[in-house]
Amino acid sequence: MTVSPPTTPARQDLIARFTDMLGPVGVITGETDTASYCTDWRNLYHGRALAVLRPASTEELSRLVQFCNEHDVPMVPQGGNTSMVGGATPDGSGREVVICLSRMNRIRNIDPNDLTMEIEAGVTLKAAQDAAREAGFMLPLSISSEGSAQIGGVLATNAGGNNTLRYGNARELVLGLEAVMPDGGVFHGLRRLRKDNTGYALRQLLIGSEGTLGFITTAILQLHPQPRAIEAALCAVDDAQAALKLLGLLRARDPALLQAFEFMSGTGMDMVIDLIPGTTLPLGERAPAYVLLELATPRPDADLREYAEDVLGDALEEGIITDAVIAESEGQRTGLWKLREEHAEAQRRAGASVKNDVSVPVTHVPELITRATVACEKLIPGIRPAPFGHMGDGNIHFNLVQPEGMAPDAFLARSHDIMNTVAAIVKELDGSFSAEHGVGQLKPYMMPSWRGGAELAAMRHIKAALDPKNLMNPGKVLPPVTPGT
Amino acid sequence: MTVSPPTTPARQDLIARFTDMLGPVGVITGETDTASYCTDWRNLYHGRALAVLRPASTEELSRLVQFCNEHDVPMVPQGGNTSMVGGATPDGSGREVVICLSRMNRIRNIDPNDLTMEIEAGVTLKAAQDAAREAGFMLPLSISSEGSAQIGGVLATNAGGNNTLRYGNARELVLGLEAVMPDGGVFHGLRRLRKDNTGYALRQLLIGSEGTLGFITTAILQLHPQPRAIEAALCAVDDAQAALKLLGLLRARDPALLQAFEFMSGTGMDMVIDLIPGTTLPLGERAPAYVLLELATPRPDADLREYAEDVLGDALEEGIITDAVIAESEGQRTGLWKLREEHAEAQRRAGASVKNDVSVPVTHVPELITRATVACEKLIPGIRPAPFGHMGDGNIHFNLVQPEGMAPDAFLARSHDIMNTVAAIVKELDGSFSAEHGVGQLKPYMMPSWRGGAELAAMRHIKAALDPKNLMNPGKVLPPVTPGT
Repeated sequence: MTVSPPTTPARQDLIARFTDMLGPVGVITGETDTASYCTDWRNLYHGRALAVLRPASTEELSRLVQFCNEHDVPMVPQGGNTSMVGGATPDGSGREVVICLSRMNRIRNIDPNDLTMEIEAGVTLKAAQDAAREAGFMLPLSISSEGSAQIGGVLATNAGGNNTLRYGNARELVLGLEAVMPDGGVFHGLRRLRKDNTGYALRQLLIGSEGTLGFITTAILQLHPQPRAIEAALCAVDDAQAALKLLGLLRARDPALLQAFEFMSGTGMDMVIDLIPGTTLPLGERAPAYVLLELATPRPDADLREYAEDVLGDALEEGIITDAVIAESEGQRTGLWKLREEHAEAQRRAGASVKNDVSVPVTHVPELITRATVACEKLIPGIRPAPFGHMGDGNIHFNLVQPEGMAPDAFLARSHDIMNTVAAIVKELDGSFSAEHGVGQLKPYMMPSWRGGAELAAMRHIKAALDPKNLMNPGKVLPPVTPGT
Repeated sequence: MTVSPPTTPARQDLIARFTDMLGPVGVITGETDTASYCTDWRNLYHGRALAVLRPASTEELSRLVQFCNEHDVPMVPQGGNTSMVGGATPDGSGREVVICLSRMNRIRNIDPNDLTMEIEAGVTLKAAQDAAREAGFMLPLSISSEGSAQIGGVLATNAGGNNTLRYGNARELVLGLEAVMPDGGVFHGLRRLRKDNTGYALRQLLIGSEGTLGFITTAILQLHPQPRAIEAALCAVDDAQAALKLLGLLRARDPALLQAFEFMSGTGMDMVIDLIPGTTLPLGERAPAYVLLELATPRPDADLREYAEDVLGDALEEGIITDAVIAESEGQRTGLWKLREEHAEAQRRAGASVKNDVSVPVTHVPELITRATVACEKLIPGIRPAPFGHMGDGNIHFNLVQPEGMAPDAFLARSHDIMNTVAAIVKELDGSFSAEHGVGQLKPYMMPSWRGGAELAAMRHIKAALDPKNLMNPGKVLPPVTPGT
């Protein structure tokens, strides 16, 4: 699937036609004005765009996509441009148009009986959260880029975050979708039905397809009631196996109360306490590993504090945890979360580091940590593994900090050895090479070995069927077809 | 897409080849022995089969499907054969093979930390529930056919049931799938990852595709802890609008506690009390409508009874409900559910009736009931609308019983008028013509008007891409392509 260059109309003609369709406010051209749209958030990719196009409605987008399809113009959907894998960045050809839906930024409706929000693709996740809160509800999707990330991109990449073990990923919060398909046709799937078995799950297919199968234009999102009580606790554990036991205990009692379960290694916590001013460990002594957990309920009379004390008391008695502290105030809760959130910065201060955002079945997290630690220490003696993250989802940031005294460049020169070492173990444990961030243009090369055979073949068939000219976000998700694959 | 008749090998040769592949135990032939596989559960469809084939493993199925594909043999997957829409019944040509996975009936693994069950397609839903319970967990999927329905079919049709408002449909309980694709290739998606953004959601596409895109062979299901406290209550309300307010109140307090919310009309309840011996209304007087709700929690110390009394007390005080009774014992709880479960039988005793299994957004349930009641009463004066069902999901069984004294046949002769009257209102309210049962071969004709345009076009493209010879369950879900559609 290669795209033949547009013959007629030529570049200026195309821009004139875009301007006819969208008005001057809908068309941005020129290297300077389009520059910020052509570079990804991590500054890994630098592309060029024929134009940046900003339709104001589904109808405008539909006509635009139909036009691009007819004239073989490749299209790159872009939301907040916060992709970690170059998923929204055009290539260097200058033939692609970037299409942004930031002018489609209305929250159309919040229904207090359905607990739903009808929202356009260009609304930022933060604005959506705020609107839900003002209406008395919660949109339980939170990621660090939420101030910039837009709903369209959040859904196209099936975003995750801290609270997915309780509320699910973006996918689980979507009841209905409207989308413009690669030929310009509009998929009118803006339904808010809990039960609807009428054909193939197009909504599910579009979610997580990273803009390669169409443009998500509007969504119906599922809201939840706001928690009325929250309890956060930091627990000391001997190892990840003990953390897993604690998770099992909490889930057996009531999984609906558990909204965060974060693992931290002793090494990582030491770096935070030693390198980040103002942090202290609110426990008697340092431990080999820690869990930060958060319980929450919308129920006003749930005695959540008592419940937290009971369950942690039992965990202490059974020897699952060795110490625990429950936050006594909102300030203390913020302090506990600071210990978790400063991990990235502490690791940066400790030296060069290599990051792996991987997931495995929750049961296998201890084995992942043990095996990857041993393997990396064997690879580079003195290396400092500091795994942490969303253990409740099996999603561990397996980060490794350079040995003390080693030259950072020498360490970083081993990056691929380290990543391959971790990846091999993740693969053996039936894990994923991209837990949250997707494939984008950074990782399609990994698809054949991780998702190959009938799975990748089916993905290719679907892509070719819905986008036969390969005009929707080309080069993303699927690797190029090469002879023999 | 039409299938050309197999030329070579001929019918007997094919059966010999099947026997080579599967052994004699894997092949059933002859009209008598295949009869029960060729008739649907409702006795609406009567087909014929070249053979009924029972592979014992994914590998055997894979080779079988590849063979059928190469020799243009159409394949009809069949689980417990409990489809309500003829979804698993072969056509009358005698050219199709029925393929059953009932020999693949192992529960491979229950993981208490992951709260997952790895299970083969041929296990009945009831056996899966029992195994989960014995391991101390709950598989929260329950349908009336669960004694016969098999996991493969349950997932292929995205089954629903009574407790979906709390735990979701079948789709929400599936973490991973293995499937044999139409060309015989094996999709190795038996993962149990909560976060995995690596390409298109094939798992989601297969769920609900009713066997038209491949065979589901094994699944990883999500388990939940068993409830340790359950409270059931019957409430009297003035109308569906009041029932909706009660639902809103319960959801605002804590949606995680609400596991059933069933609406019943006064007309339907009167029929139950008047026509089913041993039923009594445990309230002071009869009401225009009722809600049967059930609260549950795995938390041992949740004071659920006190919570139920509080919330229903508030609902009484606010005038949302006019009366309520909470079951004092398991026997009383069973008695309350009997009032709900005997609706179908009571309606049968009251005369001929017409059934509509529809869904609308939860907010629109009152409007559906009001408008459809008025429209049907106008159509046939004296008709007795008795809507009831899963109001928490927006899924109402809008059933209508004949006027007293009318000849049943005369009433049933108006079935299509009645169904069309209800369907027109459901459609205006953005509802679904098949909430739970799927499309099968009964309802493909409704797809163009309800799911037409870009949506049906995309479904057709996907079907053609994955099953270009249209050999997987032909004639199901998608209507035949006719000129102009």
